[in-house]
Amino acid sequence: MKKTVARLADGRQLIYYDTTDGGKSRARPADSRQLSALTVGSELRFDPLVDEWVAIAAHRQDRTHLPDAAECPLCPSRDGALTEIPASDYEVVVFDNRFPSLSADVGELASAGEELVPRQPGIGHCEIVCFTSDHDSSFAQLTPARARTVLEAWADRTIELGLQPGIEQVVPFENRGVEIGVTLQHPHGQIYALPFAAPRTRRMLESARSYRRRTWRNLFADVLATERKAGTRIVAENEFWTAFVPAAARWPVEVHVYPHRQVPDLPALSEAERDAFCHIYLDLLRRLDRLYDTPLPYVAAWQQAMVNIDRDLSYLRLELFSIRRAEDKLKYLAAMESAMGVFLNDVRPEDVAQRLRDLGD
Amino acid sequence: MKKTVARLADGRQLIYYDTTDGGKSRARPADSRQLSALTVGSELRFDPLVDEWVAIAAHRQDRTHLPDAAECPLCPSRDGALTEIPASDYEVVVFDNRFPSLSADVGELASAGEELVPRQPGIGHCEIVCFTSDHDSSFAQLTPARARTVLEAWADRTIELGLQPGIEQVVPFENRGVEIGVTLQHPHGQIYALPFAAPRTRRMLESARSYRRRTWRNLFADVLATERKAGTRIVAENEFWTAFVPAAARWPVEVHVYPHRQVPDLPALSEAERDAFCHIYLDLLRRLDRLYDTPLPYVAAWQQAMVNIDRDLSYLRLELFSIRRAEDKLKYLAAMESAMGVFLNDVRPEDVAQRLRDLGD
Repeated sequence: MKKTVARLADGRQLIYYDTTDGGKSRARPADSRQLSALTVGSELRFDPLVDEWVAIAAHRQDRTHLPDAAECPLCPSRDGALTEIPASDYEVVVFDNRFPSLSADVGELASAGEELVPRQPGIGHCEIVCFTSDHDSSFAQLTPARARTVLEAWADRTIELGLQPGIEQVVPFENRGVEIGVTLQHPHGQIYALPFAAPRTRRMLESARSYRRRTWRNLFADVLATERKAGTRIVAENEFWTAFVPAAARWPVEVHVYPHRQVPDLPALSEAERDAFCHIYLDLLRRLDRLYDTPLPYVAAWQQAMVNIDRDLSYLRLELFSIRRAEDKLKYLAAMESAMGVFLNDVRPEDVAQRLRDLGD
Repeated sequence: MKKTVARLADGRQLIYYDTTDGGKSRARPADSRQLSALTVGSELRFDPLVDEWVAIAAHRQDRTHLPDAAECPLCPSRDGALTEIPASDYEVVVFDNRFPSLSADVGELASAGEELVPRQPGIGHCEIVCFTSDHDSSFAQLTPARARTVLEAWADRTIELGLQPGIEQVVPFENRGVEIGVTLQHPHGQIYALPFAAPRTRRMLESARSYRRRTWRNLFADVLATERKAGTRIVAENEFWTAFVPAAARWPVEVHVYPHRQVPDLPALSEAERDAFCHIYLDLLRRLDRLYDTPLPYVAAWQQAMVNIDRDLSYLRLELFSIRRAEDKLKYLAAMESAMGVFLNDVRPEDVAQRLRDLGD
């Protein structure tokens, strides 16, 4: 894999990731746009009722919203249409979001807040990952080799971002579909580097810690073993990975992808595990897109170990879910889920697993 | 307040709540529909990764979805159009949801599940609360007297449902607007009686317990005192209640309404507190509907004490929030919020509080 680091006109970093055997030492023109300097006013505020940080990022209200394909900022630059990517073609590109929720360049706090609800500068990193230069493609349509390049980019950024000051967790993810609020249609994902443990990660680590104290075993490994033994919720598997619908799925479509070996994060995966992931994940995504007449909107996120703590407890895995509960119906998070944290799922996990098993090539 | 208990054709309970001075001893005809018996297959499954129960209710997939006004099941019955409410008019009605996520009549478990992910029958109660017989009205348009009748119904059901076997928490709430998935447009709310502490409630009680251990004080009371002292996020207040945008608001519009006196639940409110709530809440809802050209979609939920435990720690309050972040834009919960639990809010709490202060009568 070849990695080429560049800078955009406003100083943001952009990295081209290319397959080493592609031999495409393309010209990488400089970004010739006139871009005003970024103003990032993010701050973190502490909610003492639930013991969590919330990011307030008022400057994001005016971010680019569903532009026409001709104005897509993630397509390669063409004459007369300069985009976020200066090159005329690319394989995989990772660059700093111009409208980040968190930033290393965040300004001073306007106020420290009240004692019970303190504030901190919204430090962190928000990166965009373009999977392909083809505006009309999708992750599911990538070749295994291209998916592997994306995975290499995720792993590389996990290492690099984990070394940045104050970063505690690196989260590569993809939001796909206007139904979940995607504002750019070009196939892309994102990477967030957080200055704290994500609340859901923290809760899972607490469960894993309690479980290890009681059993001397790893909770995630035992969940995987339980699913492999039950079999009724497995969607796909190969030598290194298993994809299953969790027994207590919160979403009408939800699939978790676990490696068979406990590793803390993406950089710890072996070559064989990386290749095998690409195959099971592309297989899974293609099954998901066959569920309905139109492609499935979904959220996919890597649960990786924290940078500094609890790495021995952690177990890398990908969690994917969709809010679509029928061809023409979405699952909405209303009072029970959003106000109370109680999830109501109208679809039996065993039923959706069976459907997905039946949708193989 | 006059309370009249009836039964629907399939055995579900329906209660009419009327103002005592209304003198409307209306005829309450029996439900003459032919309704098949309910089949409720809800089950609860335990997610060991986050230590929470999830409700799986597959029978709900075919529930009534956005019927025409002429077929609204929450309007009074008319000749040739029999609805869920047999009477030809009503003030406030509470009845069992025909498509409940949880039910006292839930069947036996088909399987006990695996040891790590056990299951329980989905016991509980899901009730519908109709605020008015006027299909085109809204809570914001109720008179204070009618709002008071709704509050009396909430308080009455909190007592009654709390006495039912296995119930640990009673949650009156309103989901308003198709944008958050409301399937019936008629002005109504719901009441859920849960067989466990809602995860968000449990986390807040843990925070309150830890805070009391450290300070000998009540966390919620101190949050309210902090907001009243800061003043910058207060939307409205009267002698008994304060409505404010929380300092670490998760949503583009979020307002919490606290009584000035620590009480565990709605039945514990005094007469004066009940009247004063109706006034501040109607004022708040009318401000919210003035934010944009169309009525604000929102979720409003009562955070009440658990039935049996931690009542001394608890502090009744109402939490309201909206996913609308601009006239034509919604806040979506994507990977950061839904997969990681990290909330990103594009609106400064002080700014939305100022806007709402400026939108008074």
